[in-house]
Order: sequence, then structure tokens, then C-alpha cells
Amino acid sequence: MERALAAARAAGARGEVPIGCVIVGPGGAVLAEAGNRTEELKDPTAHAELLAIRAAAAALGSPRLVDCDLYVTLEPCPMCAQAISFARLRRVYWGAADPKGGGIEQGPRIFDQPTCHHRPDLYPGLGEREAAELLRAFFRERR
Amino acid sequence: MERALAAARAAGARGEVPIGCVIVGPGGAVLAEAGNRTEELKDPTAHAELLAIRAAAAALGSPRLVDCDLYVTLEPCPMCAQAISFARLRRVYWGAADPKGGGIEQGPRIFDQPTCHHRPDLYPGLGEREAAELLRAFFRERR
Repeated sequence: MERALAAARAAGARGEVPIGCVIVGPGGAVLAEAGNRTEELKDPTAHAELLAIRAAAAALGSPRLVDCDLYVTLEPCPMCAQAISFARLRRVYWGAADPKGGGIEQGPRIFDQPTCHHRPDLYPGLGEREAAELLRAFFRERR
Repeated sequence: MERALAAARAAGARGEVPIGCVIVGPGGAVLAEAGNRTEELKDPTAHAELLAIRAAAAALGSPRLVDCDLYVTLEPCPMCAQAISFARLRRVYWGAADPKGGGIEQGPRIFDQPTCHHRPDLYPGLGEREAAELLRAFFRERR
């Protein structure tokens, strides 16, 4: 989660909402890390998790990230939660909860749906304080 | 929708699940068209809609596809439905319903959630018969 927080800080420094994500492979090595790049890439799908999933799948040469774990600083949105399910990720660790846009513990609760065919193990609240403070500071500066 | 169906047929010919998508700009011109490429790209996020949204955003140089409409042969999944919302698409037309994996009229009903901050106008059932038959024929051949 330290590396995900560093990726979040780097995203904030680029003017992006500070969210960072790391995917770790079965052997414990980092397969991919990414920060949010929606502004830079002008791409509404360029969330940290989606970029990391695409990079990890490219690194493994497979659309399924079996026995891989994902760390992200904010609760994934519904788009990213569904992508996590498609990618067959084993565990998802996240920092801050996202009452306004989250897709796991709020709103659509993607992994609890009958249309969800793979549910990872979930570990909320890892590095929560620092992840939440990064986001608060970012939005405080912009208001 | 004819062009989306053609993109779906082309995807099927490549060995992908036959789903196709077209995005039309405010003036009526096609901004992007894509078929499903999850197998070819080894990318679990490479659904027709996500590829088309990314291409249209790149074409416009903006993450928001204001006054643009999306046509897709199958009801979007939760990942693609949320991406459609982030992209601020105006209208979504789709062909066949997807009881097992759809994200609009089943399961998480993405656009009905309090965490969804933009809801497009929805037009289900356009080209439904042909879209459904394409999918049925594809899966019949593989069983």
C-alpha cells in the first residue's frame, strides 16, 4: 500500500485526483503500478485501477490475473470493481471509503450482484488515514 | 446500429464474443467504432464500449463526450455502463438484453444508483433480433 500511496501522491502532483494502485503477482513481485490519469490522457476510463489492470494483463500476457492482488488508495468505483471481477483478481485492499462514488460497499455493491461471476476477497481500510488525507488536501486546495 | 452490428460480426470472425459499438458525435458523424477485443489484446477491459469510448475521447481530445450517442449490440455490463456515465454520453441504444451480465436493466442497475452522477437516455431493443442471433450462433458453434 505504500507504493500505491506514492502513486497517488504522484498523480496529485500532476494535477490528477490523487489515487494510486499497485498489482502484485503470485510471487509477490509488483506487476503494475499506476496513478489516475483521466485528465492527462483525456480518457474517462483512465482510473488508476483500470490502467494497472491493463498493464498487469499485458505483463502476464493474459486477461486473467489469477492469484494476483490489487492495492488501491480509494474504494474502487463500479467500473473498476467490475473490471477487477473480470480480471479474476484474488484480493482487493483499499484505503479510504468512497460514499459518493464507490462501487463495493455502496451504491451498486458490484461483488454482491448475481451478475458478478467472480468475487475477490476484500480488505478495506488499509492505509485509510493517509489515503483520505491526500484526497482531502487535494480538494481543499482547489476550492 | 447497422455499423455496430457489422463491428459485432467482425469481432465474431476474429474469435471474439460478437459485440460491436459505435459512437456518434453531435453532428451525426461516427466518432469511433469498435468490436470486443478481450482475447486479442489479452485485456479484460477491452469491451467494445470501453474501446469506443477511449477512441472517441481521443478523437475529441476530451474525457467528456457531450451530446454524443452510443450504439451497442448487447446491453452494457456494469463496467461499461459506469464508463458511459463518466463519459457523459447523451443517449445509449442497445440491441439484446443481457440477463447474466448486464448492468443497466439487471444486477447493479448502474444508472439508478445514488453513486451515478450522469444518467443517459436509454433506448433498449434496437436491432435486438439480429444482435441476439449473432450471439446465439457464436455460442452454439462453441458448445
